[in-house]
Amino acid sequence: MADYTFFTNPMSRGQIVRWALHEANADYETELVDWTNKPQGLLDANPMGKVPTLVHHHGDHTHVITEAAAICAYIAEVSAPDLLPSDEERASYLRWMFFAAGPLEQAIIAKSMGWDVPDGKEAMAGFGTYERTVETLISVLSGRDFICGDRFTMADVYVGSQVDWGLMFQSLPDDPVFKAYAERLRQRPKYKEAKGIDMALIAEAESNG
Amino acid sequence: MADYTFFTNPMSRGQIVRWALHEANADYETELVDWTNKPQGLLDANPMGKVPTLVHHHGDHTHVITEAAAICAYIAEVSAPDLLPSDEERASYLRWMFFAAGPLEQAIIAKSMGWDVPDGKEAMAGFGTYERTVETLISVLSGRDFICGDRFTMADVYVGSQVDWGLMFQSLPDDPVFKAYAERLRQRPKYKEAKGIDMALIAEAESNG
Repeated sequence: MADYTFFTNPMSRGQIVRWALHEANADYETELVDWTNKPQGLLDANPMGKVPTLVHHHGDHTHVITEAAAICAYIAEVSAPDLLPSDEERASYLRWMFFAAGPLEQAIIAKSMGWDVPDGKEAMAGFGTYERTVETLISVLSGRDFICGDRFTMADVYVGSQVDWGLMFQSLPDDPVFKAYAERLRQRPKYKEAKGIDMALIAEAESNG
Repeated sequence: MADYTFFTNPMSRGQIVRWALHEANADYETELVDWTNKPQGLLDANPMGKVPTLVHHHGDHTHVITEAAAICAYIAEVSAPDLLPSDEERASYLRWMFFAAGPLEQAIIAKSMGWDVPDGKEAMAGFGTYERTVETLISVLSGRDFICGDRFTMADVYVGSQVDWGLMFQSLPDDPVFKAYAERLRQRPKYKEAKGIDMALIAEAESNG
């Protein structure tokens, strides 16, 4: 049995997790999830039935992890110590992982749903405004190649995926700093390897549909 | 100089971080932030000017951490190894920290702002529906005393604060499972110690205002 069972759909945030699994050279098997007919194995592991869901086969028992950012962090801790932050990188690693999973994701969703934060409720909304949230991320990335500094870490898989998707779906502005960062990530062999698998699965689903 | 400088306002998510600092027995100094006149030290550390912001004085340099969940995780890694998860607790620790910082926070904010997720866009919204998000958390907490199992970890400071606030501000339902969990946390000496400080600061501000 592989170390991990990876429940995913190629048209989902599962793409982030597949990239993380490949950067970690992890041993995993994929269970493709059809939205209309979810496999029992997924519902047993995660009654919400959300993908991505990762099951870690750990000795005689299993651990279930959900939330794309949590799964990336877990894979790094268990299977890719080289992608964990050093003492000097830790503040950035945690700060920007949670920033991308929290305020950034919220700001992007609110914008794409057409939700406006009423005046005076910015502190409650957590992300303040879309513009300030985006500027904050551009500002940190202008001074460095990767989110923690000079070196690629697992935080780049998660934060970088948000930027990569944001540019593709135009939910983030076409800023040169974002474009340069995304381009650095897209050149990585493991990014290409993982995306290749999901793109092939999407093409296959489309030709069958 | 203390190990940490803690920029906060007692009427903010800074309460979560103060509790984390006390659970860790951390050596910190507080810089109170007036919304209308933000101290330069905060703006230098974090141009967004958000609180809580934590500055870690590390040898001859500093690290800046923002996002309440990231700050809790950082404090545990640097100052409270006993509150970090074991190998058996790690999946839950990461899963529920990111669940609370992502889907749960989003669901609560969307509800309190009166934002509805249009039919068919649940997957895009990440949290699906408020009801399912809340049920998921109730379901995991029904089987255990703390979010990782039998033992209090730093994840309880963050997840527990969401539950504690949700009950207080009625943004979460008055469920017996939530109430029992919040009660266990409110009995902790470090919770009382930290809340005592913030409550006194709030009372002082009100008597001056």
